[in-house]
Amino acid sequence: MAAHPKLSLAKMQNWINENRSQWLEEFMTFLSFPSVSSEPQFKQSLLECEEWLSRYLKNLHFEVESWPTEGHPVLFASHMKAGPDKPTLLIYNHYDVQPSDPLEEWQSPPFHGSLRNGQIYARGAQDNKGQCFYVLQSLKLLQNQLGTLPINIKLCIEGEEEIGSAGLAHLLPHKKEQLQADYLAIVDLGLRKEKIPALTLGIRGIVTLDVEVQGSKIDLHSGSHGGIAHNPIHALVKLLASMRDDKGRVAIPGFYKDVREMPLEERSRVSFQFDANEYQQQTGAMPTGGEIEYSVLERAWIRPALEINGICGGYTGKGFKTVIPAKAYAKISCRLVPDQNPAEIGELIAAFLKENAPSGIHVSTTVHPGQGKAVRVCPEAGIVKAFAEAFEEVFGAPCEFIFEGASIPIVPQLAEACGGDTILLGLGLTTDQIHAPNEHFGVDRLEKGMLVMARAIELLNPVT
Amino acid sequence: MAAHPKLSLAKMQNWINENRSQWLEEFMTFLSFPSVSSEPQFKQSLLECEEWLSRYLKNLHFEVESWPTEGHPVLFASHMKAGPDKPTLLIYNHYDVQPSDPLEEWQSPPFHGSLRNGQIYARGAQDNKGQCFYVLQSLKLLQNQLGTLPINIKLCIEGEEEIGSAGLAHLLPHKKEQLQADYLAIVDLGLRKEKIPALTLGIRGIVTLDVEVQGSKIDLHSGSHGGIAHNPIHALVKLLASMRDDKGRVAIPGFYKDVREMPLEERSRVSFQFDANEYQQQTGAMPTGGEIEYSVLERAWIRPALEINGICGGYTGKGFKTVIPAKAYAKISCRLVPDQNPAEIGELIAAFLKENAPSGIHVSTTVHPGQGKAVRVCPEAGIVKAFAEAFEEVFGAPCEFIFEGASIPIVPQLAEACGGDTILLGLGLTTDQIHAPNEHFGVDRLEKGMLVMARAIELLNPVT
Repeated sequence: MAAHPKLSLAKMQNWINENRSQWLEEFMTFLSFPSVSSEPQFKQSLLECEEWLSRYLKNLHFEVESWPTEGHPVLFASHMKAGPDKPTLLIYNHYDVQPSDPLEEWQSPPFHGSLRNGQIYARGAQDNKGQCFYVLQSLKLLQNQLGTLPINIKLCIEGEEEIGSAGLAHLLPHKKEQLQADYLAIVDLGLRKEKIPALTLGIRGIVTLDVEVQGSKIDLHSGSHGGIAHNPIHALVKLLASMRDDKGRVAIPGFYKDVREMPLEERSRVSFQFDANEYQQQTGAMPTGGEIEYSVLERAWIRPALEINGICGGYTGKGFKTVIPAKAYAKISCRLVPDQNPAEIGELIAAFLKENAPSGIHVSTTVHPGQGKAVRVCPEAGIVKAFAEAFEEVFGAPCEFIFEGASIPIVPQLAEACGGDTILLGLGLTTDQIHAPNEHFGVDRLEKGMLVMARAIELLNPVT
Repeated sequence: MAAHPKLSLAKMQNWINENRSQWLEEFMTFLSFPSVSSEPQFKQSLLECEEWLSRYLKNLHFEVESWPTEGHPVLFASHMKAGPDKPTLLIYNHYDVQPSDPLEEWQSPPFHGSLRNGQIYARGAQDNKGQCFYVLQSLKLLQNQLGTLPINIKLCIEGEEEIGSAGLAHLLPHKKEQLQADYLAIVDLGLRKEKIPALTLGIRGIVTLDVEVQGSKIDLHSGSHGGIAHNPIHALVKLLASMRDDKGRVAIPGFYKDVREMPLEERSRVSFQFDANEYQQQTGAMPTGGEIEYSVLERAWIRPALEINGICGGYTGKGFKTVIPAKAYAKISCRLVPDQNPAEIGELIAAFLKENAPSGIHVSTTVHPGQGKAVRVCPEAGIVKAFAEAFEEVFGAPCEFIFEGASIPIVPQLAEACGGDTILLGLGLTTDQIHAPNEHFGVDRLEKGMLVMARAIELLNPVT
C-alpha cells in the first residue's frame, strides 16, 4: 500500500482557523448534554445527545442508523461513496460520560463547557466527546477540501462505554456485515507527553463487582451492642484488606494463573520510562500503590491490578452517630492482562469473599456484565504505520509506542466483528482529569486531532 | 431514712387513666420537634423543643432557666417548695435525638408520632423524650394528687447528649450551687426484660474520632492509575482491619493498660445471664462480635470495645465509577470501662493510625470533645434502695442489677457537680430500636415510668 495525500497541513490548518468559532460552538453544544450512562435519570439526555450526533452526521452526507439496545442506543453511520475498490475504516467513539460528582469540586458547571487558558472544561471534554468531535471535524474538513472522502468511512459511536458496553456487545453478533471493515481505529486513548505523538499497543481488560456485607437485620446502637454485634464494617475492612498482601500483590488464589508474561523483544519497542516527580506534581502523590516488585509502568500497563472504587457503611454525615449498621458495601474493579478471563476473575473474587466471611456475617456479590478482556495490537499492521506517519507529520516528532492501563471492554469483540487490523489512539493526557472534577481538553489538541485523523485517512487511500 | 408513701398505686393509675388522652397528645407534640443535635439545620427545632418544655414546667409551678451554650441550651428547672428540711432530687434527661436516616426504612415519619399495637413510633419515642416525658407526668401526678411535691426537685434537661454534652460540660463548673442535690437520677437507661425491673450499676465511657486518609490530591481514573496510585480506600481498610486481632481484641498498644478488672464479689450481684437465641430473634444475628475470650454480657458491660461507626470513600451510588478517590473517611468510637481515660485512648488510636500509615498516604484524625469516663454506682446508697422498692412495687417482681454498655458522657461530671448519690435507671428495652429506624416505646412502659418515678419520689421523703 502506498498513499497519496493531496492536502498540505497548512491548507488543513487554514480551514480549521477559518471555521474555529463555528466548530467551538458546536463542540460546546455536544458537551451540554449530561449523557451520564450510569445514572438512570439521564436516559433522556443520552437520547438527545445521540440525536444531535445523528443530525450532525446526516449533514456530512452520512447514512445514519440508531441501533436500539436495552440501555442507550448505538449510533452507526457510514459514508461508502469512495466505492468498493477503496478500503473501509471503522472508527469507534462513545457519547456517554462518567458521573460528575463530587459536583462541589468543579470550578465551572460540568455540563456547560467553559474555555479557560486554552482548555475547555466540561465532563466529557476529553473522554470521549472531545476525541469524537475531532473525528467529526476531520471528516468535515476532508469533504470541504476534497469534495468527498478518499476512503469509505464507518462510525460506531456508542452510549454505554462507561458502564461496560453491554448494549453494543449484544448487537455485535447481528451487525457483523455492517461493521465489517479493513481497519478499526479506537479513538479513546492518549499521549504520554503533549508534544510527543504516541500510539497505544494494548489496553487492559476489566471486571467490576459490587459487594454487600450484612450482620444484623437492623441498625444497632454501638453502646449497647459494641463488643457483641458483629459489625459488618469490621468484617468488610478485614475482607478487603486481605485481598492484597504486603507487597501489593493480589492475594486471591488463582488471580495470576493466566497472566501471560510479555516477551523481552516485545518489551524493547515500548517506552517504559517514567518520571515519578512529574507524576507527583500532577497527582499530588508518588506512585507507591500496587506490586512493589514491578516498575511503575509495568504495574500500570502489563500487570493486572485490583482496586476498591467505593466503600460505604454506617453514618457518614456531619457530627457523629453511634451506630453499628446492618450492612456495609464496596465496589471493586480489576484491570486484567492477557490471558486473564474477566468472568473467571470476578468469580474468584466473589468466592474468596464468601469463603472468608466470618461467622455471623453474610456476604453477597454481584459480578457486573460489561467485562472486557485485555487487547494487544500488531505493531506491523498498515493502519499502525499510517497513523504513526500522520502523527509524526502533525507533531514533527517520532511516534512512541505505549500501552494504556484503562479498559475499553468492547474493543476485543468489536475488532472481531470488524475483522480488520486495529489501532488504539487518541490525544488525551493523564492531566486531563477524566473521570474526575474539572475534566478538560486543550483546543490545540482538538485541532491536532483533526489534522491527524484527516492525514491518516488520506494515507489509508492506496495509489490507484 | 424511713419513707411514708401516701398514694396507692391504684389511685395513681386512676389519674393516669383519666388523663390519658391529654398526656398522649402532649407527648406527640414533644416528639414532633426534629431536635437532631448533630445536624446544624435543626438548630431552630432544638430551641423550639426546649421552649415547649419550659412552658410545660412553668405550668407545673417550676422555676425555669434556659442556660445558653455554644451549641443547644440546657433547660434547668427547680421546685423547692418542700423546704430546706426535705431532700433534693436532681433528675437528668435530654431533649435532643439521634439523626433519623436512613429515612426510607421508617414505616411512619420519624417526627410524627404514630401509635401502633400499643407502641409509639418516632425518633426519640424512647431515647430520651419518652423517658423524660414520664418524669414530667410523675411530677404532674404528684402535684395533682398531693397538692404539691413531697421533696425538692431539680431537673436538668440538656440538648446535646447525642453529640457528647459539650455545652453542659462547660457549664458545670459554674452551676455547682444550682445543681447541688442529695440524689441524682439519670433517667436514660433500661430493662433487660419487659416484666423484670432493673437498676443500672454502671455505664461505659466513650471517645469518638474522625479519620481522613488521603492519597493523591485529585480523584484518579482507576484504569490509568490502578496498580500505581496508592488508593486511600486500600490504606484505610488495612489500617482499620489492623485495629482488632483475630480474637476480637483491640490491637492498639496500650488500649487495655488501665482496665480495672471487676472483683468477683461485685460480679456476684450482677445478672450476666444472656439468651443468645432471643438476641438473634431481635437483631437477626448472633452476638459473635468482639472479644471471643469473654462472655457476651462481659463484652457489652464491663469490657471496652472499639467500633467503626461509619466509612466512606469513592463512588457509592448506583452503577459503577472506576475511580481511585483522593480521600477516604471513617468514624470510630470506643466504649470504655474504669479506669480508661477517654482523651488518652483517643490519642492512642490517632497515633496508631498515623504510625501505621503506609508511604504515600496522609492520615489525619480528629478526636472529638464530649468524651466521657465510665461510671459505677454504689449499690448501698439510699436512692438505689428507694428506686428498687418503687420498681418492685410497680412491677411486682424482684429488681435485678445490671450494667449498660452505652455511654452518657456527662454523668461523671454531673454527679460530681451534684454531690449526691447517683442512680441510673429507665424503662428502655433493647428492642426499642433507639438510634435506628422505627424507634418506639410502649404506652404501658410510659405509664409504669410515671408510677415508678412518683413512688420513688415519695419514698425519698423521710418521716418527719
